[in-house]
Amino acid sequence: MYPYIAGHKLGQEAQFANWFLQFSYAITSSSIISGVIVERCTFLAYLVYSVFTTAVTYPVVSHWAWSPEGWLGLLGFKDFAGSGVVHLCGGSCAVVACVLIGPRQGRYPKKADAEFDGHSTPAVAMGGMVLFVGFLAFNCASLLHISQPGDGELVAKVIVNTVLSGSGGVIGGLLASRLGLLGGDKYWSYLHTLNVGLFGMVSVCANCDAVDIWAAWVIALCGGIIYSGIVRLLEKLEVDDPLNAIAVHFGGGLWGLLASSVLREEALQDNEKAGRFLAYNCIGALAIVAWSMAVTAVIFGSLRYAGVLRPSEQDECVGMDLATHHEPAYAFTPADVGLYQHHEDKAEEQEPLASVSGAAALRHKNVEGDLTDPFLAMTGCSI
Amino acid sequence: MYPYIAGHKLGQEAQFANWFLQFSYAITSSSIISGVIVERCTFLAYLVYSVFTTAVTYPVVSHWAWSPEGWLGLLGFKDFAGSGVVHLCGGSCAVVACVLIGPRQGRYPKKADAEFDGHSTPAVAMGGMVLFVGFLAFNCASLLHISQPGDGELVAKVIVNTVLSGSGGVIGGLLASRLGLLGGDKYWSYLHTLNVGLFGMVSVCANCDAVDIWAAWVIALCGGIIYSGIVRLLEKLEVDDPLNAIAVHFGGGLWGLLASSVLREEALQDNEKAGRFLAYNCIGALAIVAWSMAVTAVIFGSLRYAGVLRPSEQDECVGMDLATHHEPAYAFTPADVGLYQHHEDKAEEQEPLASVSGAAALRHKNVEGDLTDPFLAMTGCSI
Amino acid sequence: MYPYIAGHKLGQEAQFANWFLQFSYAITSSSIISGVIVERCTFLAYLVYSVFTTAVTYPVVSHWAWSPEGWLGLLGFKDFAGSGVVHLCGGSCAVVACVLIGPRQGRYPKKADAEFDGHSTPAVAMGGMVLFVGFLAFNCASLLHISQPGDGELVAKVIVNTVLSGSGGVIGGLLASRLGLLGGDKYWSYLHTLNVGLFGMVSVCANCDAVDIWAAWVIALCGGIIYSGIVRLLEKLEVDDPLNAIAVHFGGGLWGLLASSVLREEALQDNEKAGRFLAYNCIGALAIVAWSMAVTAVIFGSLRYAGVLRPSEQDECVGMDLATHHEPAYAFTPADVGLYQHHEDKAEEQEPLASVSGAAALRHKNVEGDLTDPFLAMTGCSI
Repeated sequence: MYPYIAGHKLGQEAQFANWFLQFSYAITSSSIISGVIVERCTFLAYLVYSVFTTAVTYPVVSHWAWSPEGWLGLLGFKDFAGSGVVHLCGGSCAVVACVLIGPRQGRYPKKADAEFDGHSTPAVAMGGMVLFVGFLAFNCASLLHISQPGDGELVAKVIVNTVLSGSGGVIGGLLASRLGLLGGDKYWSYLHTLNVGLFGMVSVCANCDAVDIWAAWVIALCGGIIYSGIVRLLEKLEVDDPLNAIAVHFGGGLWGLLASSVLREEALQDNEKAGRFLAYNCIGALAIVAWSMAVTAVIFGSLRYAGVLRPSEQDECVGMDLATHHEPAYAFTPADVGLYQHHEDKAEEQEPLASVSGAAALRHKNVEGDLTDPFLAMTGCSI
Repeated sequence: MYPYIAGHKLGQEAQFANWFLQFSYAITSSSIISGVIVERCTFLAYLVYSVFTTAVTYPVVSHWAWSPEGWLGLLGFKDFAGSGVVHLCGGSCAVVACVLIGPRQGRYPKKADAEFDGHSTPAVAMGGMVLFVGFLAFNCASLLHISQPGDGELVAKVIVNTVLSGSGGVIGGLLASRLGLLGGDKYWSYLHTLNVGLFGMVSVCANCDAVDIWAAWVIALCGGIIYSGIVRLLEKLEVDDPLNAIAVHFGGGLWGLLASSVLREEALQDNEKAGRFLAYNCIGALAIVAWSMAVTAVIFGSLRYAGVLRPSEQDECVGMDLATHHEPAYAFTPADVGLYQHHEDKAEEQEPLASVSGAAALRHKNVEGDLTDPFLAMTGCSI
Repeated sequence: MYPYIAGHKLGQEAQFANWFLQFSYAITSSSIISGVIVERCTFLAYLVYSVFTTAVTYPVVSHWAWSPEGWLGLLGFKDFAGSGVVHLCGGSCAVVACVLIGPRQGRYPKKADAEFDGHSTPAVAMGGMVLFVGFLAFNCASLLHISQPGDGELVAKVIVNTVLSGSGGVIGGLLASRLGLLGGDKYWSYLHTLNVGLFGMVSVCANCDAVDIWAAWVIALCGGIIYSGIVRLLEKLEVDDPLNAIAVHFGGGLWGLLASSVLREEALQDNEKAGRFLAYNCIGALAIVAWSMAVTAVIFGSLRYAGVLRPSEQDECVGMDLATHHEPAYAFTPADVGLYQHHEDKAEEQEPLASVSGAAALRHKNVEGDLTDPFLAMTGCSI
């Protein structure tokens, strides 16, 4: 491990391809957190935990499971493409981060579900497309080579299992929303269906090289129930996860590690083996959850203690896009920009806020005063 | 064929890669239908015909043309990447589906062209980018292998022909819209140009491994005329195809099967061969059209007879996104969501509709009452 | 070179793959120009310069540097993936084009920065994602083969250097905007950060096969300062580059050619070599800039002299999307389309403009009268 710190010696040992794979996995792990704590995390905290997660939290887990000298790998822990190493790790971090950062203002007690509905189904759809297609590459790349005999067949199998796990998940999600497992109205939810499709792909990662195709489909299908249960549990516990990413990655990762270990083709023919695989993967899951949660508790606890974890109440109401980045995240059309600018014009008659200056002040003031009224109203914040 | 039902034996015979390719082609085929009947098809009907098209309609055609024992392939039918097997098949289904489902409410007699204009050029542009890039992989993958001698050269040729067919189509589309072939104003249409670019790529599929590069370009260029003719014919016949996908896939597929067969390099040097290729591809086209249309007539006829093909008038006016999925398909910004929510707030004073319940009722009512007024007005529906 | 005009003989000599690579590079080169002169270039001029740039300007540079008989390549000019051949070439064309076409109406003297702010951060983000991912393929593809011994290792190195150059650039951009190097407010700009990330990837192209990973990161990091300097210089000179693409491609390309030549692994161990590499790349840069600027001056000068370079004042105010293409570029939602249509309805009471006809006239009039009021106001145009 040490030889590679800061990339030293990467080149001499033909480790560049491996670096790229691990880089992709590390940022996936860290990105899971960002979705869960979105809309109420400072940019500083984001920088700190991103560096820490990709530089410490994830690499240790990856080393345990995938390095030739890693203890989990030596023990017999099976995680081909990262249900545990990537998704359970990132999901465990996300659970702790979400609890420590707390819910968005006005989220609990909430007034109505609709008030915190997402605001762009088309953007979700585009993101979903990228994730579904990207998953194919993600799972196959775990093989680490493509020109050795048998690689073609194995990659093809991984692709088919990944496609089928997306399919099983999507059907599980459709049924879950239609049968009312998610609570509230019984309807065909597109958004939850997308999420359960991802749950399915996350859960089959662990053994996508070793389960039969029906098993991949069935493991994913169960996501409908498990995802729904986690979503409703978190809502009852008032843990505010805007993207339901904990259900997808923590839930999917954990379920995948356990279920797929006993459904491996060799495990189905040998109960004793199945038991061992399950035991090893339970140990792995425990170790990953414990480590990831502990480390994240230290980072997020420190950030919270230092008072730099959450933005000011006002900045959160205004939105970090305007407060921190001074660039509106949601304007898609001149009409939208017109809204911003219209409010800016009116702002000249008002007195500037002390905490922000210049053009930014104008924008803040206007946003607060007018544009996001429905949002401010729903969060119940008084500024 | 039978050995593979539900994936049985896929693994033993190294058929996973082939499965993935056929999976991609099958859903392409089925997706063509969805574009043509969009905005007026129930979710149930969508599920039924999608399963049927991918499980029965397409596989039979694919077997005829591409299986070692398929009669079309044995006859001499040439369709390298699916002008006929994928696009003409899907396009034929779409023609029948479109006729059986009927036009959108208020479409014919129409008040003005502009009333049914698309509502998001940027979304169309992003979809177009995905399709153009995806086509490169689509056409190359038809080779089915990449590590045998000569594969590199052939794939490179397919790529170049695919790029040039897009280019020819785009130029054909630009000229068609500018010269007024599409009727109405003479201007440089971006939307039609994208469509004719796709027409070009669809039409060169059939022989993208076997035509010279000038031929690929010329075949696609003719799309300007053929696409325009089909678009205007369908409009005259009052067949309502919101995406003009029939012109792209049925038109492009049929034209490609015929034109590219006589422009194959070997056909250009031998009239007798050219005649035979044309004859075989005519037979193939006829068989594909007949089978696809017949099967689709049975499915859509049954769905229509059972009364589950189209949503209620009211649901169609509201939009399936809200009526069936309870998630607005078009909100891109908080301002848009604000519109929805603003109307929801007002709804409390009104009495709920009997047919929908709870929050959904509120949303429906408001949407009907206010938000989509211009759309309701234009469809002429009274609710 | 001659044998390949119009693709003749491409097939016999296995040049298809090379054609596809050069095609991609040529259109990249030309696309750089389009971003810089956007919103004020006629469609005719766009067609003319696109053909000219991809058919004459770029191919000559590419031949100099990458053909076996090219004088720059024979001299010892090092440009693995096109910092000079693609980006400096396109950037040089863009500089001349931008000066000759002049700034957008009302841009200088400008009223306030905010008035010319971009109008869709999400669309920028999606474009950025495509460019960042595409760059990985862009840089690797320059190797031209993938099945020879050592190709895997080299491609992996190129990937890692490309990723790290994006990383270095992003950090440079974050710091630049936060430290106020870009002028105006000091904040964490997302838009400039994206641009400097691209600057980094552009600058490392030239020697991404031959620099150590720390060097790739450092070269890109400097982009924060260089990009900011160019952006502010152009603003002072009142050269209106809406996308800051000159800073990214001209700046990044030039910086990359020079910096990466002296940071090549072999150059670091041998001062004499470093000097020679720098000298060769200086000569190459000069030749590329001189040729690209001279040719572009001829094309754009001719277009300007012929009076077909810029649209009429009125068309520019209305927007080319409506004036030339009759399709709104920015409507994302029914609400937006409603805006257009609402204004169209009112237009019937007004008298048509002489210069435009039919439905287009209505749309133009309304747009002028109402929809883009804030935009018209800000450009100061009176119509």
